[in-house]
Amino acid sequence: MTSIDQVLQKIDQNKEKLIARLAEAVEIPSVSGDAAYRKHVFEMADWLKAQLEKLGATAELKPLGKQNLDGQEIELPPVIFSDLKAKTDADKKKTILIYGHFDVQPALKSDGWNSEPFKLVHDEKTGRLYGRGSTDDKGPVIGWLNVIEAHQQVGLDLPVNLKFCFEGMEESSSVGLDDLIRKHKNDFFTGVDAICISDNYWLGTKKPCLTHGLRGITYFKLRISGPQADLHSGVFGGMVHEPMTDLFAVMSKLVTPQGEILVPGINELVAPLTSEEAQRFDNMEYALTDLHSATGKDVAINDDKAKTLMARMRYPSLSLHGVEGAFSAPGAKTVICASVIGKFSIRLVPDMKPEKVISLVQDYVQKEFAKLGSKNTVHIEGEGGAPWYADPNHWNYVAAAKATKKIYGVEPDLTREGGSIPVALTFSEELQKNLLLLPMGRGDDGAHSTNEKIDISNYIEGTKLLGTYLHEVAAAS
Amino acid sequence: MTSIDQVLQKIDQNKEKLIARLAEAVEIPSVSGDAAYRKHVFEMADWLKAQLEKLGATAELKPLGKQNLDGQEIELPPVIFSDLKAKTDADKKKTILIYGHFDVQPALKSDGWNSEPFKLVHDEKTGRLYGRGSTDDKGPVIGWLNVIEAHQQVGLDLPVNLKFCFEGMEESSSVGLDDLIRKHKNDFFTGVDAICISDNYWLGTKKPCLTHGLRGITYFKLRISGPQADLHSGVFGGMVHEPMTDLFAVMSKLVTPQGEILVPGINELVAPLTSEEAQRFDNMEYALTDLHSATGKDVAINDDKAKTLMARMRYPSLSLHGVEGAFSAPGAKTVICASVIGKFSIRLVPDMKPEKVISLVQDYVQKEFAKLGSKNTVHIEGEGGAPWYADPNHWNYVAAAKATKKIYGVEPDLTREGGSIPVALTFSEELQKNLLLLPMGRGDDGAHSTNEKIDISNYIEGTKLLGTYLHEVAAAS
Repeated sequence: MTSIDQVLQKIDQNKEKLIARLAEAVEIPSVSGDAAYRKHVFEMADWLKAQLEKLGATAELKPLGKQNLDGQEIELPPVIFSDLKAKTDADKKKTILIYGHFDVQPALKSDGWNSEPFKLVHDEKTGRLYGRGSTDDKGPVIGWLNVIEAHQQVGLDLPVNLKFCFEGMEESSSVGLDDLIRKHKNDFFTGVDAICISDNYWLGTKKPCLTHGLRGITYFKLRISGPQADLHSGVFGGMVHEPMTDLFAVMSKLVTPQGEILVPGINELVAPLTSEEAQRFDNMEYALTDLHSATGKDVAINDDKAKTLMARMRYPSLSLHGVEGAFSAPGAKTVICASVIGKFSIRLVPDMKPEKVISLVQDYVQKEFAKLGSKNTVHIEGEGGAPWYADPNHWNYVAAAKATKKIYGVEPDLTREGGSIPVALTFSEELQKNLLLLPMGRGDDGAHSTNEKIDISNYIEGTKLLGTYLHEVAAAS
Repeated sequence: MTSIDQVLQKIDQNKEKLIARLAEAVEIPSVSGDAAYRKHVFEMADWLKAQLEKLGATAELKPLGKQNLDGQEIELPPVIFSDLKAKTDADKKKTILIYGHFDVQPALKSDGWNSEPFKLVHDEKTGRLYGRGSTDDKGPVIGWLNVIEAHQQVGLDLPVNLKFCFEGMEESSSVGLDDLIRKHKNDFFTGVDAICISDNYWLGTKKPCLTHGLRGITYFKLRISGPQADLHSGVFGGMVHEPMTDLFAVMSKLVTPQGEILVPGINELVAPLTSEEAQRFDNMEYALTDLHSATGKDVAINDDKAKTLMARMRYPSLSLHGVEGAFSAPGAKTVICASVIGKFSIRLVPDMKPEKVISLVQDYVQKEFAKLGSKNTVHIEGEGGAPWYADPNHWNYVAAAKATKKIYGVEPDLTREGGSIPVALTFSEELQKNLLLLPMGRGDDGAHSTNEKIDISNYIEGTKLLGTYLHEVAAAS
């Protein structure tokens, strides 16, 4: 009787073919953020649709309408909705929804690439595959295709039914996707039991992880308005309340140099640390030197690993980003700015609700501004998205952990990410199903950067991991 | 026997001719800051030289070499050195050095002018002459020519010897002028007894003034450096010391919203207020509403006239101008800036020495930064120019006050300006003679702005004032 082991063996045997398949995808420069490349995003959608259909899946291109980009109105790339039912007992089997994206970040050799970004280069010495999209997110998307192919080659039916939702605008704010999900939650997305996204990375370079949380964000614009026009600081300096002085006074009251948020009530919104959670951070494969090398210098607030990881994953942070309307060029200008807008944001974690955070910040800023005794005026607005958190004890995660143990021989770290992937929140909220982030690549893959790569071992073992996950999730209860 | 009264009468009779002379000058668009207009600055120098020679003065164009402007190397406009000795008793008469400039600020009708900027428009209803350079500084420069002409018309010898130094780069940082003054202090500038510059404005619109002080300035660039490259605030927010947080913490400690400078030792450098001085501020023709209308809104720190004027004229001020290296565009960007430079400046008054101020600020910033406990690094540099102050009890001022009383019937206010005119400091320091700022125009003339104007009454009475001043200064001892 055929088994998953034969599938894994077949994946190993297919190695060169799988690399060739990824190479084919990387050669299509499907950059979503540049109108001149838009045709290649469509080309990539057609390529992926054909691959899915070749494997016996249905595949439909869902149009999203038009957008304005680089001054022209152009067609948005379609989202692919694809269905592949198990051949036997489909009704009794679980249905797993897979999300991925087939667009990529821009890349030019002149940006500092060592090779052509849209040609997959196999570095025999390091065992790495260089190319735009290799790890973000063409490698993982093709990983799913590889899994289906290997099953068919060894004559093993799929242990679950699969639904795919692949988009071509992820690198450009996923324009149109949320609406499409909401529109089809009661038809295409019906019957989904759990969701899996392979579009993030291991924390470091050695140990696999499952990711069950993402921080949300609220972004603030704090405007202080004074005189009706910019003034000469020689003529008016000393006579008038200056918006920049007020802005610096208020913004300096938001966060300490040690990252402590000073807005009353904010820290109280954070879910208390459980001992199970604390244990997870202690166990995580990470060293302060990883942070030092990522930032190029030791500017770490904490010298403690667990505290550092918690600061990134499970606590809020407040960053000051800049000032609009002030002098920002090199050189010297003696201006009193008429009106300035300070920009800052707060990363959110459970149980912080954006609306509550915005209201606390607004109240605090108004109060701090009132203390200044300035005749200028203040206006503050914020907008944002909630954090995403999934239960890591859900069978979806338990299955993924078992699969990881089988492929890599270690228990995966249970991580959370500091940034945001809005679609994870949308799927979780709209479908009300557990969502798993199951990364294929490593922390040093350089997604969005020059010389993006995926290690061949991550691509091949990662493909095996995705396949094994499907079997574990089928067996889970 | 002919007297100054006949000169004044003649000036009145010449009115239309004097307006026509100013119109001729305004029609030459001698914009020094735009390479495309440079030929007109030369044209203006030639025009002025010819006018001076027609009046019997010697006039020499002193070349200043080349400069780089708008990407091209072009010839700097010359400085005019001109000498006009009294016909009789020249050896016994005082020599007064007159400075002025014949270049102007850029102007395009599309900037918001109601008429062509380089055509002098006589508004009969308001009695105003509109045109670029009408008040800054072609009106006053031509005023001196008008005075000489009227003396010659009535057959009255000049009561003093005159030396003129007219430049064509005042609106573009007076490139080359300081060096030229130093170079010729022992030849052309020898024998000067006092200096007069008519290149500023009344405080308001009604009462004439003499100006005997200008604030200096020190400009600071405060750099905070952290990580080696900009970081994503989602991934790193909370883990690292952020340069922006440190910058806001330090810069918020420099000045209060009420304009009080917090750098220890700075305020102690300010010369104590004398009762004579305090009296002057009480007497000054000024109302808070003048400030409100200049700033378009009431953002005044003080509701007291004298305190407001002292804040501008005789106390230092500290303004925050901007941040280089941070996010400054509209919209939202979630960046942790790698390195940012805060810009601020302090306006200086007697007895503040720029070097001392720079050193106090550097010490304070280093100390405040050290308190933050940040692993980022700080670097602060400053540069600046000293304040200028002239003794208003000097015979040069006494003479100007008497002349003002004769022409306008009031004692002039003795004002100081908040901004800087570097050449005033250079002349004072190099020639070690009393320097007087004797304005012709009004506070609302709109120098540097659209619809620059001079009231005909200011042009004609101002011309008479310049002539009367020469007689009073000749009689002074």
